[in-house]
Amino acid sequence: MDDIIFGKNAITEALIKGDREINKILISKNIHSDSKLNQIKELAKQRGVVFQFVAKEKFSQYAQYNHQGIIAQISPIEYMDLDDFLEKEHENSSVVILDGIEDSHNLGAIIRTCVCAGVAGIIIPSRRNVQVNDIVEKTSAGAINHIPIIKVNSLVNAVQKLKNSDWWVVATDASAKDNYYDVDYNNMNFAIIMGAEHAGVSKSLLKLSDFIVKIPMLKDFNSLNVSNALSAIIFETVRQKLKNSQK
Amino acid sequence: MDDIIFGKNAITEALIKGDREINKILISKNIHSDSKLNQIKELAKQRGVVFQFVAKEKFSQYAQYNHQGIIAQISPIEYMDLDDFLEKEHENSSVVILDGIEDSHNLGAIIRTCVCAGVAGIIIPSRRNVQVNDIVEKTSAGAINHIPIIKVNSLVNAVQKLKNSDWWVVATDASAKDNYYDVDYNNMNFAIIMGAEHAGVSKSLLKLSDFIVKIPMLKDFNSLNVSNALSAIIFETVRQKLKNSQK
Repeated sequence: MDDIIFGKNAITEALIKGDREINKILISKNIHSDSKLNQIKELAKQRGVVFQFVAKEKFSQYAQYNHQGIIAQISPIEYMDLDDFLEKEHENSSVVILDGIEDSHNLGAIIRTCVCAGVAGIIIPSRRNVQVNDIVEKTSAGAINHIPIIKVNSLVNAVQKLKNSDWWVVATDASAKDNYYDVDYNNMNFAIIMGAEHAGVSKSLLKLSDFIVKIPMLKDFNSLNVSNALSAIIFETVRQKLKNSQK
Repeated sequence: MDDIIFGKNAITEALIKGDREINKILISKNIHSDSKLNQIKELAKQRGVVFQFVAKEKFSQYAQYNHQGIIAQISPIEYMDLDDFLEKEHENSSVVILDGIEDSHNLGAIIRTCVCAGVAGIIIPSRRNVQVNDIVEKTSAGAINHIPIIKVNSLVNAVQKLKNSDWWVVATDASAKDNYYDVDYNNMNFAIIMGAEHAGVSKSLLKLSDFIVKIPMLKDFNSLNVSNALSAIIFETVRQKLKNSQK
């Protein structure tokens, strides 16, 4: 079970103090709107914390708490700010951007792969993507402590920032013409964007990308698990780097 | 819940008829040994079906059945025989051998990856490896129907058979000297052996292998999920094949 804070007063206090990383605030649709709730919404907006109105059935798993119809899900890690990440020195560095990954096990496996492959950071959006929760932490087999996870409110803005800092952007798309191994990943900082298993990478991000690549399939069955797709691509970048360093 | 057959009579009948693929027979340690049970053990041996004595607590999930302390787990697919597989024509073909994979989700993801990468078959041992169950079927996202799964009683014998049929054998091991991409996978039939996440590939199989390779890690964190490790390797073989066909 995720770590949570419940009840209006405790959540208000947590938002004011700002010392605990909140993944999301869930508010029951049946909750009585009052000045306390308005204050929470206001504070959440200021701090860039997502809040979501959900059916009261969502709260059945928290029945043992006196939650008053409001729960804040606490992250087991502290997310990094993209600006702070970009201010560090980067050379032949890489980041992975996740656009709409919903499965906690997939995120955990992706984090492991990224750490093994020396990826410098993972960027996730604060909405429409799984956050780092207890299952992610467990599935990552400890990897979560070896890589910064960068949470952003807008992936479009994040990609723009990367491009402004001279990072190259590679998006994956099943209908791309180029194969992932046709890109030369040496001598540049680059980001790889992986999309949701069904919807793929958003059009707005594809437009911003410098390269759009696919993984060629040898059978007419195009349904690679996203963590396995990323692994194929990211270890190709490792192969190229190691080959290049031998020259 | 897996499909099961329960009770001595029904299991005896299933073993005699032999029309349903049995993954494993679980026998309660508390069961009374009688001529019927002996007949089941005898039939299971003849048919190469694994049976296992387990604590009666294992049966709590089957409490709604009148199982008399004995359950046969039925496979959702029919396994292929290795001899039948090898009798087919193979050219630049590949198989993946799984040595001690315990997680159903991993097996499902591996099956998806193998189908996408055009692998000709997957070999699993009848013991100390997850069998194809309902979770594997679900996680494979339909891929299970696009690739033969070959079940063998001995991986050592299976590798010997492959070698006798001129297949090359590549095993993965974290302490290998060579990297997986240093092998030339063109113009040969080859098998890739993936080991259990903790124990790795068995020594007896490493001894039989023509190549032992590792995935180089860019960070001192060597804990890639097995399906992600396989994905990196298998798509390198695809890359090489496609590059070669362009020549």
